[in-house]
Amino acid sequence: MLTRQSRMPREYDYIKSSASPGPCPLCEGHEIEVGKEIEAIRRGGAPSGGPGWDVRTIAAPEPVLQVEGDLGRRGIGMYDAMNSVGANELIVESPRHDVMPQESGEAQMARVFSMYRSRIQDLERDARLRYIFIYKNHGKAAGARFGHPHSELVATPIIPHYVKGELDAAKSYYSYKERCVFCDVINEEDRMGARVIKKTRHFISFAPYSPAFPFEFWVIPLRHHCAFQEIAPDELQDLAGLMTTLLKRLSALFPDVSYNYILHTAPNRVPRKDHWHTLGDDYHWHIEAAPRLLRFSGVNWGAGLNIIPTSPEDAARLMREG
Amino acid sequence: MLTRQSRMPREYDYIKSSASPGPCPLCEGHEIEVGKEIEAIRRGGAPSGGPGWDVRTIAAPEPVLQVEGDLGRRGIGMYDAMNSVGANELIVESPRHDVMPQESGEAQMARVFSMYRSRIQDLERDARLRYIFIYKNHGKAAGARFGHPHSELVATPIIPHYVKGELDAAKSYYSYKERCVFCDVINEEDRMGARVIKKTRHFISFAPYSPAFPFEFWVIPLRHHCAFQEIAPDELQDLAGLMTTLLKRLSALFPDVSYNYILHTAPNRVPRKDHWHTLGDDYHWHIEAAPRLLRFSGVNWGAGLNIIPTSPEDAARLMREG
Repeated sequence: MLTRQSRMPREYDYIKSSASPGPCPLCEGHEIEVGKEIEAIRRGGAPSGGPGWDVRTIAAPEPVLQVEGDLGRRGIGMYDAMNSVGANELIVESPRHDVMPQESGEAQMARVFSMYRSRIQDLERDARLRYIFIYKNHGKAAGARFGHPHSELVATPIIPHYVKGELDAAKSYYSYKERCVFCDVINEEDRMGARVIKKTRHFISFAPYSPAFPFEFWVIPLRHHCAFQEIAPDELQDLAGLMTTLLKRLSALFPDVSYNYILHTAPNRVPRKDHWHTLGDDYHWHIEAAPRLLRFSGVNWGAGLNIIPTSPEDAARLMREG
Repeated sequence: MLTRQSRMPREYDYIKSSASPGPCPLCEGHEIEVGKEIEAIRRGGAPSGGPGWDVRTIAAPEPVLQVEGDLGRRGIGMYDAMNSVGANELIVESPRHDVMPQESGEAQMARVFSMYRSRIQDLERDARLRYIFIYKNHGKAAGARFGHPHSELVATPIIPHYVKGELDAAKSYYSYKERCVFCDVINEEDRMGARVIKKTRHFISFAPYSPAFPFEFWVIPLRHHCAFQEIAPDELQDLAGLMTTLLKRLSALFPDVSYNYILHTAPNRVPRKDHWHTLGDDYHWHIEAAPRLLRFSGVNWGAGLNIIPTSPEDAARLMREG
């Protein structure tokens, strides 16, 4: 349990457009209204902390984790507790409020992904941190805190539950087959074809065989590698182009769609180098994207049963044509 | 993968109140507009299929599973598939649209829970079925299909993923401690007291130590037993009273709240009698209820990290006072 001060639950103040009442604190020129700047990609030597940036990482408002302190692992009766050590950052993807990610151009998308890489490379040096989780909530139905394009980063002293589940499953497949499950999925999707959305020089995108969300899509690098932060420069450019295309097609099919995407990458290597080197063979970084077209009901979160109205084959066909 | 015909995703037509445009097909007098009646608790010998009922189970509209056919387990390339065999039922909890569950009285709540029991007892005789999952989606934000009070039932030829995870965890705790983890949780919550909402003769309700949702609460029978359908008559009456109180308090704190509750019970015993008898020691049926006050974001469904603004101690205190 990661503890913090308690308050009543409320939806975040969601500023949908820059024309909404009240200025957006994430817009360029409002730097003073938000948390400390951690890193920025700036235009022509503009000084840090003020305007003149293309992509900017700041301390998250109402952070759930603090950078200072030790882990303090302890028991409370039969339960487990630890201090809320970690990092919680907000990656502001554009100086402008009203330019959606797919409209910002491939160069800007590449800056966003290079910021992800840089934040992981910076935070993985902290030996207390075990996992750096980067995700995007776009739109209110996807749990977004702001209408302004942004991603979130949570770095934790534990490997999150679901991440651990995926790592264990990949490891179990590897010990059975002596092959990476994601490499096998790539080959299988490429061979079958019906669920493939787009294949580029370095990536394949497809609707997964057993999706949790209608129109869910995955993006996997063709080169087997466990860690996103070691992406090659030409891979990063290719990824920026592909993500731009995919988000454009999704928005063409569903205007104003809310979605999440999640970067699935290996746990930090610094604290457990040996484990990571084994893991390198059985894990394969990738991105999972989920449009949030329907509500989660009791059968989704209670049973893990996902009732999907649109087949992945139909979703892929519409995304190919989109 | 359970397959069905594909269509574009859309929210269900949600008829919030009986005054909404269009009559509600679940209301008494509209029996002909919905699926076949499977079972009903009727008033004074009214004939089946028509009005005169208190609680009624019907075939779910747009069912995701069909009762007929064999399992047809097979591989498709590297993936697994089986036929969509099972049952999908809708339990209509009241003949009236506008009487919310907590306002219907303890006698009516007891009829609803006795219908759950009866449906499980009926369906567990089908040896193809491994699990009977009963859950309630109340309100649009909880994924409800109708505003009319109802529960849903999905009976599957597999043990659903998350249910399996809970059973395995309970089994693992049992092999380590030789005690039921739920019995230990009951003792611990009762000893600590801060998260207890209400204790009755046969049940304890509390806000769990590490909730996934703010104001989540659990209801566990004090008597160790793995299977809900073997609940004793006085336990059922007690449960009906407690659920009425808890839903009243939740609605007092959050008017018009959407919520799910889920019946966690043991897998069907018929196909695997031996397993079930072992399971009897390590599993303990209970109910988990989750108000849906906030949206699921990428960190919830992607990482399994739950950021809860209200501590369970504060939630329990407010629910005690509510």
